[in-house]
Amino acid sequence: SFLHGSGVLLLPIGHRCISQAAAKIDVDFDYDGPLMKTEVPGPRSRVRFQSLENAEAVHFFCNYEESRGNYLVDVDGNRMLDLYSQISSIPIGYSHPSLIKLLQQPQNLSTFINRPALGILPPENFAEKLKESLLSVAPKGLSQIVTMSCGSCSNENAFKTIFIWYRSKERGHNNVTKEELESCMINQAPGCPDYTMLSFMGGFHGRTMGCLATTHSKAIHKLDIPSLDWPIAPFPRLKYPLEDFVKENQQEEARCLEEVEDLIVKYRKKKKIVAGIIVEPIQSEGGDNHASDDFFRKLRDIARKHGCAFLVDEVQTGGGCTGKFWAHEHWGLDDPADVVTFSKKMMTGGFFHKEEFRPNAPYRIFNTWLGDPSKNLMLAEVIKVIKNEDLLGNAAHAGKVLLTGLLDLQARYPHLISRARGRGTFCSFDTPNDATRNKLITIARNKGVVLGGCGDRSIRFRPTLIFKDHHAHLFLNIFSDILANFK
Amino acid sequence: SFLHGSGVLLLPIGHRCISQAAAKIDVDFDYDGPLMKTEVPGPRSRVRFQSLENAEAVHFFCNYEESRGNYLVDVDGNRMLDLYSQISSIPIGYSHPSLIKLLQQPQNLSTFINRPALGILPPENFAEKLKESLLSVAPKGLSQIVTMSCGSCSNENAFKTIFIWYRSKERGHNNVTKEELESCMINQAPGCPDYTMLSFMGGFHGRTMGCLATTHSKAIHKLDIPSLDWPIAPFPRLKYPLEDFVKENQQEEARCLEEVEDLIVKYRKKKKIVAGIIVEPIQSEGGDNHASDDFFRKLRDIARKHGCAFLVDEVQTGGGCTGKFWAHEHWGLDDPADVVTFSKKMMTGGFFHKEEFRPNAPYRIFNTWLGDPSKNLMLAEVIKVIKNEDLLGNAAHAGKVLLTGLLDLQARYPHLISRARGRGTFCSFDTPNDATRNKLITIARNKGVVLGGCGDRSIRFRPTLIFKDHHAHLFLNIFSDILANFK
Repeated sequence: SFLHGSGVLLLPIGHRCISQAAAKIDVDFDYDGPLMKTEVPGPRSRVRFQSLENAEAVHFFCNYEESRGNYLVDVDGNRMLDLYSQISSIPIGYSHPSLIKLLQQPQNLSTFINRPALGILPPENFAEKLKESLLSVAPKGLSQIVTMSCGSCSNENAFKTIFIWYRSKERGHNNVTKEELESCMINQAPGCPDYTMLSFMGGFHGRTMGCLATTHSKAIHKLDIPSLDWPIAPFPRLKYPLEDFVKENQQEEARCLEEVEDLIVKYRKKKKIVAGIIVEPIQSEGGDNHASDDFFRKLRDIARKHGCAFLVDEVQTGGGCTGKFWAHEHWGLDDPADVVTFSKKMMTGGFFHKEEFRPNAPYRIFNTWLGDPSKNLMLAEVIKVIKNEDLLGNAAHAGKVLLTGLLDLQARYPHLISRARGRGTFCSFDTPNDATRNKLITIARNKGVVLGGCGDRSIRFRPTLIFKDHHAHLFLNIFSDILANFK
Repeated sequence: SFLHGSGVLLLPIGHRCISQAAAKIDVDFDYDGPLMKTEVPGPRSRVRFQSLENAEAVHFFCNYEESRGNYLVDVDGNRMLDLYSQISSIPIGYSHPSLIKLLQQPQNLSTFINRPALGILPPENFAEKLKESLLSVAPKGLSQIVTMSCGSCSNENAFKTIFIWYRSKERGHNNVTKEELESCMINQAPGCPDYTMLSFMGGFHGRTMGCLATTHSKAIHKLDIPSLDWPIAPFPRLKYPLEDFVKENQQEEARCLEEVEDLIVKYRKKKKIVAGIIVEPIQSEGGDNHASDDFFRKLRDIARKHGCAFLVDEVQTGGGCTGKFWAHEHWGLDDPADVVTFSKKMMTGGFFHKEEFRPNAPYRIFNTWLGDPSKNLMLAEVIKVIKNEDLLGNAAHAGKVLLTGLLDLQARYPHLISRARGRGTFCSFDTPNDATRNKLITIARNKGVVLGGCGDRSIRFRPTLIFKDHHAHLFLNIFSDILANFK
């Protein structure tokens, strides 16, 4: 089961988190703490806002050359402990010595400047690099790998892989009719069948049109964009602390699963077949919504029962931050997922799938680049570091320290913090409202800690994999002071 | 007007193309000619096919370290003149010294290993790098730039930009109703309006679901994937030589334009509004289909007349190969295109748009990476080389040599070559059928020339921008021999 209040030791109320917080430098390239010179954004950042046309979403401008380990340095020389890590996309910290070394090796130059069309003209070492990187961490049962350039393309192509698989299963043979070949050219059935992907309210799976039809986290992502009539099931809304709401939460999960089955049947009746179900192990953009391992095992069973593919979107949860390489490994599935998508911390997008999901012909899942070998090269190095330094064990351990501290703060400041939850360092808590959340993020930033929001009032932790116990203590001390003084 | 038979000097029939073909090395890192050691794929390639699960589309395995300039070297040591350049995506040849130097500069290391979430935490020099690279080649009238990771994401986000613009125009104000906000979360109107993009039969705009609804080049791209009821107009099928079919071709173009207008009206009547029109300057994957500059000017007028955005997809045509940086610059539009998408030779995906197409709020066009500053850095260098070495002028000149030679071969081998056409080095010709086309490509490869196909029986030329006159002569001599001996 995932970490919650019942499984961790609460510190006595009022106890200032930790004295070990005196920063320890066990990753020698990491800085030893935040160092603030101005408020953020500072004067140098502010000038630069005017240099950019689309700066409305910009937080501040960064000096990546000076950023190291867990610390992001901005153009005003402020050094901040980064618990958001570029929307959860930096695996082993900034300017990691292993990656610098990799870039300095002359034999790697070519990989960065000669980007091939991987699907037709792969480099000599392509299979080896895949074995060293992605295939070495393939989820159990998924032997096939396709690389893509980003998370949205990964999900889009996973959908296509599932549609092709479903149709092939439905046909029962490989003979495509002339009518299918002709009708697909004009976007019509039977060549373009009326298949759907079932998704969950609150889920986020990307922003291209196929992905967006399965994304339901915020209106701003979807407003004004045409979409598809695809089924949307409710995702469990669990009550915390979990141990006080065991029965209610079980009922809530049962209700959602029942709705999933109802939707599959209802959509089949209106001839819109559910070819697959897509789900995040933890709904991230939607507000860090968790469900129990049991919920996901039952969801997997429903998918199999109805002949739907089971697609696990690990774009944000994958890569080790939950304490296992893939968050869905926590579930203990009997039968593996059919397709698992990834991006962000994996440096390249892509997806794993079962052998039976291989399209029956080349060029069906294809594009010019199909990923980027320079990203595979860096990922191979990252995975080596993760294994050598046991960064999965580290994420589990540092995550426990972080969540223990958050639960302590929650006990002391229940009017500011609620529903503290997490798996590994993939932690979060709720604040009373959007305004308080944003104020806390701004204050923390000016105290040297970069945090991210999600959902309508949550704060999420997405540190790198080299976030250690002492970083957790450091954060907890700073944040404890912030909460004590919060008005 | 674009290059065709009437504008170039035909060599006398039977004349063996050129004696200057003795290879000239004016790009000092380029090899001086093909060098073949085995047939392709050779024994080392063949062994590697078994190392890869998805090798059905693979042509052969490459040694990119040894590849230089216009020459692609395979793992068997075969060195081939590459006229396909990774599906038209290598701008200034393999292992260009300027890019090697760029990679060796220590101050650039950080850009390759610390990939930011560009939309929220850009690097200090982000605006400068955009100015040096993309903004320095912005199509006239398009001041805004958004970067993306690939061509499909570029078109998907261009569609979204157009839909948002159209809805805002339709609303006439910025007040979004509660009904819109709620309905969009469940994929329904009015929040997700029934807007469409009009595309052309034979067009190719990518393979994610939004793009795929506008792609109509080959059934293999579309079969089994659900799609959208969006209008599809015929694209002119011109007869060659153009000077013999002036009237027929004008009529053909008028017919297609009339159909465009009819579709806009017809779809509006069924409440499916055409928010934009997407078109390639030359339909590439669909078979290198050209239309006249006049056709595109009139199409642009139709878009304006009906209030539709005019989106020019320059993913394959952009970057200089037609002799201008953007192929649509040849048209001499009074009013610029509204949106222009790119990728491939530009090293990063993205799109330019007019100021009025800026979404009214941040995060509406957004994703984690929003491109990759390491690609912008390389592109800035590539654009410097293009300008310093006048590679646009070179593409125009070398393209003329190539097309002149193709027209000569067409005159000598009319049973094998027809409809020779092109703009800059973006040339092509038709063969009698698919089997002959593929056989010619295979024979050429074994003689040291990499060619690509498109459509159902065309061969397309997509050399790098450092493809010079002498490379054209070299190719023409080899190909002339192939045709003379073809059975």
